[in-house]
Amino acid sequence: MKDKFYNYIQQLQDTITAKLEEIDGQAKFKEDLWKRPEGGGGRTRVIENGAVFEKGGVNISAVHGELPESMQKFFGVKNCDFFACGLSLVLHPKNPFVPTVHANWRYFEMYDTNGKIISSWFGGGQDLTPYYLFEEDAIHFHQTCKDACDKHHPDFYPQYKKRCDTYFWNTHREEARGVGGLFFDYLKDTDTLNMKDRYSFVTEIGNSFLKGYLPIVEKRKETSFTKEQKDWQEIRRGRYVEFNLIHDKGTLFGLKTNGRIESILMSLPPKVQWHYNHLPEEGSEEYKLVTILKNPKDWV
Amino acid sequence: MKDKFYNYIQQLQDTITAKLEEIDGQAKFKEDLWKRPEGGGGRTRVIENGAVFEKGGVNISAVHGELPESMQKFFGVKNCDFFACGLSLVLHPKNPFVPTVHANWRYFEMYDTNGKIISSWFGGGQDLTPYYLFEEDAIHFHQTCKDACDKHHPDFYPQYKKRCDTYFWNTHREEARGVGGLFFDYLKDTDTLNMKDRYSFVTEIGNSFLKGYLPIVEKRKETSFTKEQKDWQEIRRGRYVEFNLIHDKGTLFGLKTNGRIESILMSLPPKVQWHYNHLPEEGSEEYKLVTILKNPKDWV
Repeated sequence: MKDKFYNYIQQLQDTITAKLEEIDGQAKFKEDLWKRPEGGGGRTRVIENGAVFEKGGVNISAVHGELPESMQKFFGVKNCDFFACGLSLVLHPKNPFVPTVHANWRYFEMYDTNGKIISSWFGGGQDLTPYYLFEEDAIHFHQTCKDACDKHHPDFYPQYKKRCDTYFWNTHREEARGVGGLFFDYLKDTDTLNMKDRYSFVTEIGNSFLKGYLPIVEKRKETSFTKEQKDWQEIRRGRYVEFNLIHDKGTLFGLKTNGRIESILMSLPPKVQWHYNHLPEEGSEEYKLVTILKNPKDWV
Repeated sequence: MKDKFYNYIQQLQDTITAKLEEIDGQAKFKEDLWKRPEGGGGRTRVIENGAVFEKGGVNISAVHGELPESMQKFFGVKNCDFFACGLSLVLHPKNPFVPTVHANWRYFEMYDTNGKIISSWFGGGQDLTPYYLFEEDAIHFHQTCKDACDKHHPDFYPQYKKRCDTYFWNTHREEARGVGGLFFDYLKDTDTLNMKDRYSFVTEIGNSFLKGYLPIVEKRKETSFTKEQKDWQEIRRGRYVEFNLIHDKGTLFGLKTNGRIESILMSLPPKVQWHYNHLPEEGSEEYKLVTILKNPKDWV
């Protein structure tokens, strides 16, 4: 399964980066291959200063070795080896009317001292972070997520949509990072769903990503915007940084497993602002966004 | 002692903000008074878009109540009340040749269920984060710290200088946040130094702050700079954000004690950039700074 899934994400990285370059029309992804001293490595692809994407990364990695002590504690295991591979992407568009998007699909294995698999699971999801709210965009993104989920189980979309709202919650701000999407983890072998079913589900989600995001980019990328709207985008990007550095388990896992810092922190936006106590004017478009983020809703 | 120290930091806030307004010559501090629902509150003073200071805060607070559970665990106590007060300041200058500065002086008391003080201590320090290295500035700042320390104990400066280098270390980047200064904590009543001596030491340090920082501001604030040098400052500010959100115990304490978010996060710089894998050119002024940050040195 680990080879099968790693092959899948390699191909998916090619497909996604090719499509994104096409839609950007100006910038190309720059590729960095890296090795992790303790085992494994990755292929980082970053785009910067594009016509559409101000900064973005579409990275794959496959790392293995001894499970770091902090993770052993977390899982309540001892003397374990692990394998983890996944694709992570974050795109920060230039135009404040195009939302930022994040996605991640991953597979994890844990081994005992004889190299036997103790446990294996899939995880992942995708979520949208707009700077201005277009309800039709949020609905389209969620509908794509739901369609892909519904092919596998009617409970998946409502469950994983809810988990996404819970996970991407900036507790210290009491607001969501964005309008959500899907979040799932620890998808293991069960009586009703085996690992082949899980693989089939996760790849269905991965394959649906471009269908969910690209039409929104196409629709908004040429919209003209003011300096004030760009400032608002940069202020909101600050909340994105706060979430990723204070709360995000993926970022912390990367830092703890001696991951490649530049590949992990490629998720941070290119330009960010923090003003003291910035509050949008009541009734404004900016205010409308914040109101929705404080009260996550069902889009489909 | 708690009233005495709180009076001291109130006056110190007045002195410092008055001097900073004078040197800025353009912007004024905006004051916000706030209350903490569980007990206490603070006086936040923020300056923005000044001629010298792009953003900065000089805040005092005095909070009390039940010690939050996470802190009870940290200190290994149960059913404790606490009192904490302090002054925190961060200044982000506009000119990339003027260093960012941070300082904090604080006093903490813990009580048993009868309201009896179980333990009390002082903590604090100050440290300098330049974007370009002027050795004479680092030496001046450290000399001021050393002079203030030496009046109280010959071991203080070497000890607290070293702790500062250890504390403000961005582990994930393997570099210091800046060129350091002083960091001390848990200054308690001992056989040789009582709380009166501790008070006298901490206030000596607080009183020395302007002497350490202002001459550097005066000397560098008019230096002309290029867009590239401003970009470098904004990129390095990214490391400041990373330290504060990932590693800083003060920030985490604030978030855990339901502190006022805007007062805690006033420490974040106004404009920040993250580029993928940005490396300064070997031999450049930017490279010189990073080399020093990776190998903290003794300045005096």
